Amino acid sequence: MNALDKLVASLSRLPGVGKKSATRLAYHILEADRAYSRSLAEQLFALHDAIRRCSVCGSFTEDDPCAICTDPSRDDSLICVVERPQDVRVIEEAREFRGRFHVLGGVIAPLEGIGPDDLSIAPLLERIRGGKVRELILATNPTVEGDTTALYLQKILKNAGVEITRLASGLPVGGDLEYADRLTLSRSFRGRVKM
Amino acid sequence: MNALDKLVASLSRLPGVGKKSATRLAYHILEADRAYSRSLAEQLFALHDAIRRCSVCGSFTEDDPCAICTDPSRDDSLICVVERPQDVRVIEEAREFRGRFHVLGGVIAPLEGIGPDDLSIAPLLERIRGGKVRELILATNPTVEGDTTALYLQKILKNAGVEITRLASGLPVGGDLEYADRLTLSRSFRGRVKM
Repeated sequence: MNALDKLVASLSRLPGVGKKSATRLAYHILEADRAYSRSLAEQLFALHDAIRRCSVCGSFTEDDPCAICTDPSRDDSLICVVERPQDVRVIEEAREFRGRFHVLGGVIAPLEGIGPDDLSIAPLLERIRGGKVRELILATNPTVEGDTTALYLQKILKNAGVEITRLASGLPVGGDLEYADRLTLSRSFRGRVKM
Repeated sequence: MNALDKLVASLSRLPGVGKKSATRLAYHILEADRAYSRSLAEQLFALHDAIRRCSVCGSFTEDDPCAICTDPSRDDSLICVVERPQDVRVIEEAREFRGRFHVLGGVIAPLEGIGPDDLSIAPLLERIRGGKVRELILATNPTVEGDTTALYLQKILKNAGVEITRLASGLPVGGDLEYADRLTLSRSFRGRVKM
């Protein structure tokens, strides 16, 4: 395998990148100036050394604890529980939530052999035991696994003295009824709000 | 900007990769084992040093001249003229053509300020002057620019003593008349073949 084929093979391992797109990317990198591939290479080299998991929330960060966990202006009484570090980024970009985060590191998925013990649940209980938390917002994805995980957390935290809420599920803003799937539509009926 | 944001910014510069996909790729790389990002980085570092342009056909290669130009089993009397190095790969994968290649390095595109002098046309004339070439297959894309470039080459090579052909254009195999655009359909009528 030559250098180009090796790069194509590596790029093909990325999610959503098939052999065709990997080839297109590799040729683009080859045709771009050398400075681009060098800086991309340097960033990849540095990545794992620069980024670690925050010891408080479990998100990715350069400094431990992360900027969100140490921000004194944020609300300690609210914790938003998400599946993965990238969910923190998405929620931050929406600029709606001003509390803290907790990253579970996945969801309960028996078919894949992932149980509660594989998730960062004990550290979450520890944070709640600290006594400052008033509400836990469960923001796992509205999928079977995400819902299962939320139900599991609700069950074990029933008597923990915190309010437990779940992100609303329903029609996306700007969406069209015609294109809504049956489950989303049925959820938006069950979750309808008084005007 | 932290290490993750920098990587997202670099990945966003790849063709067809928006900010959302770049973020998804970056998180995937971060969550994958360190060996993956290291090998990807090493491949990117090595790429421009390992790969050069073939001095004969203009394609990308590790050894100059390239494996296709030096393969004694290939037909010297046929040259397939393509726009870009990746076209050589696509044609090789079809396993139909057993002659040599010539990479123009682009197409005539007046709006982008690209004229015949910006393409590898002089080296092509030089190769034809060698006397071995019997047929030139113009395999530029069936686009306005690709057609213009093919017409230009046909014009300047009219008296060069080589046969000049163009790849057939028409309905894709496995395609559906219903989804064919007007131009493709009209070409497939004009280029119809006797059964």
